[in-house]
Amino acid sequence: MTTRRREGSAPPIALLSDFGYRDHYVGVMKGVIAAIAPAAKMIDLTHGIPAQSIAAGALMLEQSWRYFPARTIFVAVVDPGVGTERVPIAVETKAGARFVGPDNGLLWSAAEQAGIYRIVALEATHHRLAEVSKTFHGRDIFAPAAAYLWRGVQLTALGPEVTVMATAEDISGILVARVIETRNEISGSVVYVDGFGNLITNIERASVERLAGRFRGSSLSVRIGRRAPIEIRKTYGEADIGQSLATFGSFERLEIAVRDGNAAERFAAGSGAIVTIRVVRRTSNG
Amino acid sequence: MTTRRREGSAPPIALLSDFGYRDHYVGVMKGVIAAIAPAAKMIDLTHGIPAQSIAAGALMLEQSWRYFPARTIFVAVVDPGVGTERVPIAVETKAGARFVGPDNGLLWSAAEQAGIYRIVALEATHHRLAEVSKTFHGRDIFAPAAAYLWRGVQLTALGPEVTVMATAEDISGILVARVIETRNEISGSVVYVDGFGNLITNIERASVERLAGRFRGSSLSVRIGRRAPIEIRKTYGEADIGQSLATFGSFERLEIAVRDGNAAERFAAGSGAIVTIRVVRRTSNG
Amino acid sequence: MTTRRREGSAPPIALLSDFGYRDHYVGVMKGVIAAIAPAAKMIDLTHGIPAQSIAAGALMLEQSWRYFPARTIFVAVVDPGVGTERVPIAVETKAGARFVGPDNGLLWSAAEQAGIYRIVALEATHHRLAEVSKTFHGRDIFAPAAAYLWRGVQLTALGPEVTVMATAEDISGILVARVIETRNEISGSVVYVDGFGNLITNIERASVERLAGRFRGSSLSVRIGRRAPIEIRKTYGEADIGQSLATFGSFERLEIAVRDGNAAERFAAGSGAIVTIRVVRRTSNG
Repeated sequence: MTTRRREGSAPPIALLSDFGYRDHYVGVMKGVIAAIAPAAKMIDLTHGIPAQSIAAGALMLEQSWRYFPARTIFVAVVDPGVGTERVPIAVETKAGARFVGPDNGLLWSAAEQAGIYRIVALEATHHRLAEVSKTFHGRDIFAPAAAYLWRGVQLTALGPEVTVMATAEDISGILVARVIETRNEISGSVVYVDGFGNLITNIERASVERLAGRFRGSSLSVRIGRRAPIEIRKTYGEADIGQSLATFGSFERLEIAVRDGNAAERFAAGSGAIVTIRVVRRTSNG
Repeated sequence: MTTRRREGSAPPIALLSDFGYRDHYVGVMKGVIAAIAPAAKMIDLTHGIPAQSIAAGALMLEQSWRYFPARTIFVAVVDPGVGTERVPIAVETKAGARFVGPDNGLLWSAAEQAGIYRIVALEATHHRLAEVSKTFHGRDIFAPAAAYLWRGVQLTALGPEVTVMATAEDISGILVARVIETRNEISGSVVYVDGFGNLITNIERASVERLAGRFRGSSLSVRIGRRAPIEIRKTYGEADIGQSLATFGSFERLEIAVRDGNAAERFAAGSGAIVTIRVVRRTSNG
Repeated sequence: MTTRRREGSAPPIALLSDFGYRDHYVGVMKGVIAAIAPAAKMIDLTHGIPAQSIAAGALMLEQSWRYFPARTIFVAVVDPGVGTERVPIAVETKAGARFVGPDNGLLWSAAEQAGIYRIVALEATHHRLAEVSKTFHGRDIFAPAAAYLWRGVQLTALGPEVTVMATAEDISGILVARVIETRNEISGSVVYVDGFGNLITNIERASVERLAGRFRGSSLSVRIGRRAPIEIRKTYGEADIGQSLATFGSFERLEIAVRDGNAAERFAAGSGAIVTIRVVRRTSNG
């Protein structure tokens, strides 16, 4: 707590939550951070995670952390179990990123990608606010922990080490079909609907390339549920305006979109919808 | 205006408004602040106050100010009377916090909690933008005032002192039933619906503890309108998923919630809805 | 890239997009900027531009840029053609402001007001992220370009100069009727609906003053479509609560509003709706 980092070289504190933009909750967390670490730069990753969707929060965190400065401190709060026995934790990783939040699966996939190095339970009362509510650990526990870490407090000063953390399997919530690859078909499901209505699936580019590689000269068709097949395109721009397409977007996963339109509305589909990719033999004039 | 504070030790400027996140209004206010005080740190408290709801803005400000660094400058703009005779003001408080905004009741309860020390009317034309519109004092008057305060300009340089400011009673808007306590009942009303659909009432914890103290051995039931009674729980997590509960949240006021759900939708209720707490005699097998 | 600006004197990077507040897209862009230029201050202009509305983004940028510090770097991303042949550009202006974004008309009117000095195509691969996706140039091209500019990299180091950029005429999208002035009438149309439901038109104050000047002693009536005429007021506050009015707001264009209400809902009108101003002869008892 004696080391004060120089502004400019210090990493930011990045905030993610399902608090939305209506209430004062995010603002208050930032006030708490500013009171403890006045020079810390704060960056909103997003506060628009669908309410209490740990799975969506975990996905956003996993997709984002690597683009931030190496030692960024991520405070993530999607916390339907606040006030119960779920443990507040902080995680140090081999890549440098640090994660602070509830141990409910939210932090796992990002931390695992970054290489989990050490985990502590946030029990040190002098690194919390003086009064801890039952409903707002973002303000009372997580924001202070992030601010003290930023000031140079050691992870192990925040509480005792723990050896395991909740994983993606521990996330209760939306049921998502795992990806299944057979010789001539891949099936998976929609795991996230973004703000443009694009349907992001759990099917990775490598799976599709394996399938395409086995059937050179044939084309692939993508179907959502029983709807008419959709073509895979390199970019949104290759489709006509209003046309459906499947593509690999910034998530590096297959996504279904409508050029200048909204695929979630077009297909009346959301998280959990089944998506299949099949081989279509080219006709002789193809 | 000669004193330039050192970044890192300077307090932030916190912004609250009903401008929402669609338009450029908030961005422009920040541009004006950055042009006058380039090193000032700005923190969004929220811009999601329901349009023109002075009461909701006042509640958010009152709930938030104490979590910020001591000398934070709060710029609050919920201003249905912009361009009329309502006075733009700035307030210094004994606790250190400073408040800038329209004198329409918005600033009152926060300023009163912090201890009003001095109030000025923002009339000094050299501390406004060169042209003042009739519709956007956030940009033309309030943002410059906050930025000059941050630079060390004295409050009294911003305009003449005034001796009174508008109070909560002066807020026109949503009618809210005051809290009434009788020997075996408390009634009050919903004053705010947060982004999770939780119904926040004006009933404070102390009132409920007084009632519970008078009837030890009995339990209390909470009703919203004529709906079936709801139990008071210590945390959201004590309720089953989908179950209604009443609890004391981070507002330290009784709130009605649905575990992992939306109480405003469940009860089709919003600001103004009547909430009553009554004593339920325990049955012999209770 | 060797010159590191001093925090406090450096201009901010201002961000505008149609990415909304739900996803992680904006947060990731900020992470990329922070990784390249850790001390850069970032200000959100807005991310609530209606999805893929280049016209609305251009209007917000044009209305906002002059309020920011002189050498602000604006990164604007409303980019339905991402991944196609539209060129990513950066523009330096005589007024000092710099603009980074897709060359699809989005940057034009702001850049033109600020005085276009030099335009480059963002082709220098060492000033992009190592891998450039087909769908997220905000992260892979625009954010890095802005961050390197902030660090002092010369505009011409980002890519080859180009001599023309897309103008407002090149924006495909909402059809907007141009303003037509006759001796006793002005017609125009709604170009933007703000978050309060105010209908902002393309009719400038000067046009209305010319008309009023030709018919002194008469009053003007404003009509939207065939609805009943609306009076022009100096401020919102001059109308009664719930009453419609026309006024010149912070856009310096005629806007139609409802005092403490929502004009878009009242008139069931949005972008493209025709607005006419006519002279009304005063009656003898007027």
